Amino acid sequence: MTRIAIDAMGGDYAPREVVAGAVWAASEYGVAIELVGKQDRIEYELDRIRNEGIITSAGGFKDKKIKFDLSKLDIKITPATEVIEMGEAPGQAIRKKKKSSIVLAVDAVANESSDAIVAAGSTGAAMAASLFGLGRIPGIDRPAIAVTLPTMKNPIVVIDAGANSNCTPDMLYQFAVMGTTFSKNVLGIEVPRIGVLNIGEEAGKGNELAQATYKLLEENQDKLNFIGNIEGREIFSGICDVIVCDGFVGNVALKITEGTSSMLFRMLKQEFKTDPLARIAGLIAKPFMKRIYRKINYEEFGGALLLGVKGITVISHGSSKAYAIKNAVRVAKEAVETGVNKKIAEFLEGTNERSA
Amino acid sequence: MTRIAIDAMGGDYAPREVVAGAVWAASEYGVAIELVGKQDRIEYELDRIRNEGIITSAGGFKDKKIKFDLSKLDIKITPATEVIEMGEAPGQAIRKKKKSSIVLAVDAVANESSDAIVAAGSTGAAMAASLFGLGRIPGIDRPAIAVTLPTMKNPIVVIDAGANSNCTPDMLYQFAVMGTTFSKNVLGIEVPRIGVLNIGEEAGKGNELAQATYKLLEENQDKLNFIGNIEGREIFSGICDVIVCDGFVGNVALKITEGTSSMLFRMLKQEFKTDPLARIAGLIAKPFMKRIYRKINYEEFGGALLLGVKGITVISHGSSKAYAIKNAVRVAKEAVETGVNKKIAEFLEGTNERSA
Repeated sequence: MTRIAIDAMGGDYAPREVVAGAVWAASEYGVAIELVGKQDRIEYELDRIRNEGIITSAGGFKDKKIKFDLSKLDIKITPATEVIEMGEAPGQAIRKKKKSSIVLAVDAVANESSDAIVAAGSTGAAMAASLFGLGRIPGIDRPAIAVTLPTMKNPIVVIDAGANSNCTPDMLYQFAVMGTTFSKNVLGIEVPRIGVLNIGEEAGKGNELAQATYKLLEENQDKLNFIGNIEGREIFSGICDVIVCDGFVGNVALKITEGTSSMLFRMLKQEFKTDPLARIAGLIAKPFMKRIYRKINYEEFGGALLLGVKGITVISHGSSKAYAIKNAVRVAKEAVETGVNKKIAEFLEGTNERSA
Repeated sequence: MTRIAIDAMGGDYAPREVVAGAVWAASEYGVAIELVGKQDRIEYELDRIRNEGIITSAGGFKDKKIKFDLSKLDIKITPATEVIEMGEAPGQAIRKKKKSSIVLAVDAVANESSDAIVAAGSTGAAMAASLFGLGRIPGIDRPAIAVTLPTMKNPIVVIDAGANSNCTPDMLYQFAVMGTTFSKNVLGIEVPRIGVLNIGEEAGKGNELAQATYKLLEENQDKLNFIGNIEGREIFSGICDVIVCDGFVGNVALKITEGTSSMLFRMLKQEFKTDPLARIAGLIAKPFMKRIYRKINYEEFGGALLLGVKGITVISHGSSKAYAIKNAVRVAKEAVETGVNKKIAEFLEGTNERSA
């Protein structure tokens, strides 16, 4: 049985919502769970779930109560006495706090007690701990975060979504390799189309990094299905499966997507309050709006994969509640079962004449 | 009377929609217009408007016919025999095509026949022509594009929205100066709050450029109201008035905002087709959705200002129709009347001890 190690102390709603999401995932996906964190607090939450169940308002829907028979689920606790806080410098923190929940969750995968990590705390700490504890895949200079986004057609992968603020063209080439492997093996896209996020279609557009990356991908079109530059306006049109960019641009792009949709939903809500007719319209439109909200909500996608390390780390949104954590566990499970990491290593071994 | 020179040949719907927008603006804002482009084509469009009026579907609303008495409007034509196409290299094109509509529109401002330029064609050509024909404001290394975006509260300014793909911290400092002056004088924000677009709040976050810009703005807090980093998720929350970034990131951010909202509106439309109840909901919700669509639509804002040149150039969306052109003329008129360029020069003169 696949076992997922979860940093029970990471995230704005830890440990309550993290433990709840873990239990929910164990029940829904038939995975085993290793909860890493402060034992008494985790036990308290498990007791609570045993007695009261979970109350969840997933995907913007009304509160729902779910009960579980914990005796039928495979959940173990690995005690961790320390916690890395959001503000701490990641590299320093993981060296200093060797008994922290994120470091021990990574250790659990390194020593094969679990198969993957789910972490909703400091992204930097999760990355540093994974890099240090699991090591890099040969041929990958820097791990990157791959985020799956909804579009009008198939979901797309944006890589890097925030791991590396300063990048080289070689790094972006490697992101393209990792994104392609992910899209193919986890999302089931046969020949993923790769685009470079840019401010125009022509090869000469954009900053130095985008221009050099375009050239490098064009030279390697026998290995990767590079289709050219893609503008921000088009990324949701579904004309591309993997979007490559540096982690600074990728992170800004993701958060702006989030900010735009949240503003639009709030504006709609406001409009639906302006007069009695508006209220009626709002009432009728509500279920349809919720359906869309679910489609685009990060909770549905659950988490982003850190690709390029020898192991699987799923990074969840800091504000993840139980539902998002449950889905992050699903992402981790799929990544384990499809062996995306091994596939990346194989791809690079098969094409290492490029770097030679 | 303020006169606006318009590149009648620039944009996807030129000259028809550009001429229509110009006439509309002359009538609505009481400005004089100088249409620069192929004389016969402009005359043909003016005749058409004289006889038939303008049919417009502004802001997603139903077609509306507007009639004008052209004899009461101050519209002159300045013939230009050449046109710079979208694909041409801007610098080369403006040197080669001295009789092009964009070059002659800039000339009209340089020789004071008009007060500002509105251009919906190649952004690169409009920038190059303005820089070459009008010159830079002393103390500004590179002009930048300032775009006004709607938020839940006041509109915000994003600068640079695409003029400079590779930037230095000094350039971003100057963008902050220009954005502040614009926000204060054109948008009426008394003490504009400046944020650096970044991927986290802390000073140490982001790429090298963002980190160095943070430091530089922090050191100059006596001159500018710098409030720190701002994440993509927050830009629409209204906690900040001026958002500073390099033109690559700014352009990606803008286009993603556009892409996200267009996807959401399309998703809503799809949902409202799923069953009879949905259709009714859609019918009732339509006017409310349209009101929001208008709020966030670029047509409403009309155009972005090129700041940092000694003159006013408003850059319109390439797909501008009459309504967007009309609003771009409004932006140009406001910029002329508030003298934003002179204010930028004054600010820099007043604080030039910084660069010393």
